[in-house]
Amino acid sequence: MKFLTYTHAGENHLGAATEAGTIVNLGALLRQALGAQAPIPSDVAGLIEAGPALLEPARRCLEDVASHAAHRAPADARVIAPIPRPHKNVFCVGRNYRLHIIEGNLAAKRDPNDFPKAAEFFSKPWTTVIGTGEAIRRHAKHTRLLDYEIELGIVIGKGGTDIPRETALDHVFGYTIINDVTARDLQKRHGQWFKGKGLDTTCPMGPWVVHRSAVPDAQALNMELDVNGEVRQRANTQDMLFDVPAIIEQLSAGLTLHPGDVIATGTPSGVGFAMTPMRCLEPGDVVRARIDGLGELVNHVVD
Amino acid sequence: MKFLTYTHAGENHLGAATEAGTIVNLGALLRQALGAQAPIPSDVAGLIEAGPALLEPARRCLEDVASHAAHRAPADARVIAPIPRPHKNVFCVGRNYRLHIIEGNLAAKRDPNDFPKAAEFFSKPWTTVIGTGEAIRRHAKHTRLLDYEIELGIVIGKGGTDIPRETALDHVFGYTIINDVTARDLQKRHGQWFKGKGLDTTCPMGPWVVHRSAVPDAQALNMELDVNGEVRQRANTQDMLFDVPAIIEQLSAGLTLHPGDVIATGTPSGVGFAMTPMRCLEPGDVVRARIDGLGELVNHVVD
Repeated sequence: MKFLTYTHAGENHLGAATEAGTIVNLGALLRQALGAQAPIPSDVAGLIEAGPALLEPARRCLEDVASHAAHRAPADARVIAPIPRPHKNVFCVGRNYRLHIIEGNLAAKRDPNDFPKAAEFFSKPWTTVIGTGEAIRRHAKHTRLLDYEIELGIVIGKGGTDIPRETALDHVFGYTIINDVTARDLQKRHGQWFKGKGLDTTCPMGPWVVHRSAVPDAQALNMELDVNGEVRQRANTQDMLFDVPAIIEQLSAGLTLHPGDVIATGTPSGVGFAMTPMRCLEPGDVVRARIDGLGELVNHVVD
Repeated sequence: MKFLTYTHAGENHLGAATEAGTIVNLGALLRQALGAQAPIPSDVAGLIEAGPALLEPARRCLEDVASHAAHRAPADARVIAPIPRPHKNVFCVGRNYRLHIIEGNLAAKRDPNDFPKAAEFFSKPWTTVIGTGEAIRRHAKHTRLLDYEIELGIVIGKGGTDIPRETALDHVFGYTIINDVTARDLQKRHGQWFKGKGLDTTCPMGPWVVHRSAVPDAQALNMELDVNGEVRQRANTQDMLFDVPAIIEQLSAGLTLHPGDVIATGTPSGVGFAMTPMRCLEPGDVVRARIDGLGELVNHVVD
């Protein structure tokens, strides 16, 4: 099940991408199934917050292939971020792939094997979030070094505090792709990473959220990012230093997670900042991020 | 004008503290003034988002002292955080008072005069936010070093991006007190500060938001924090390294601020972590934070 949010005529709608590859108006399918009085969410966050009471009907709607033709999304609908406005900033993990840690340590002239002992968390406010097809702003006035970072995104389904790693995956609703676009100079100048990670439009997310039932092993996913067709990052989620259960365990320690919270799990090696010479995103660039089973997140850079 | 949020019978209400020191149901006063059809917000964030269309009537309601007696908040109403659930994480500035920077540098065995060149931003999710009178959890399972930090809180009234310092104060709705409670060991262990700053209940805020019209100079406010009556922090906002306009200018560079966003502006010296021997918050402690004209924020620590 691939849940998405699209906008049409100024309103957001809950949608889904079917096995056949079409985008359906899942909100309308649910209304047909549940009656005119049923409250129908307008985005994926609302679906998740509603819990099993909506998820099971949604599953049946998507299995009833014959009903889809009558409920296609309009041709001029535009897919946006599945969770366009997270209630908490997007949680992010830094330095979580071994090769990326080594490349970052070398770029900063540190011991290459200086690995974090615990996950390094930071956040991106909702003003960073955009969907596939939307533009990443270059922010040339503020940064000389805009960079990309492909990441596996976790979407929380069941909230909780002090979630142990043994049951952590029960709290996952599904997965998405995130591009943690970063202004490297601001990341350094402001000490903490927040400012360099927080510019508007620097959190492309999507194209959809794939339910975890369709992701048998989140630690065995190939991921790849290219800029204008040139592959820059290629890795597998098995290389994470802290895996999905460990991240949820550490993040939720004393910090309550809620349905719809989003966690970006860190990026592998190949960022432009660590290349020689450095490569930065510039207006006109097209960045494509792919993860096995999660689709492709495509964004272009504008002035 | 001191705007606050209180809860009664399970619902949040917009209130205000009058010059006479009573708490009135500002929502009810506004309804009386504007009619039954007017949408009335249930907290201070809603008042701010509504803009001048509600602020001016609110001002008149608060000036009409004779009307207050009939609209007192119920005796069993409980004041909560004025903005109980900010839409973006609370923005925070680290290391912004000279003496606090020096004490931190000495505690970390760095050059005492190593001052930041730009504001160091991080964030606290809404799950940290509590109001005056509410309990700070000790989180003994997760931290050995829970510490206090009194801070001047800015509440944004008019949104914007790339706000220059010259007009920054026009974007301020008002000010409040924030206690940026911090788990020092987690702050260090997790590299970035987010985790050590993000435990549930570690962002006491309030007791109210004072409109900027009542704060002639935000850089000339005495601030003081005591634990069980023992003064630990005493300073003046004139000692900030980056003042309120500078913080708004740096934060809003490429990052859009919205009405109701909250910014904590850093803490002065006197934190428990930098004392010899270290002093930590423990269950039973009562922490009182006062800033000139902004009232007193009181919280107790529980297991």
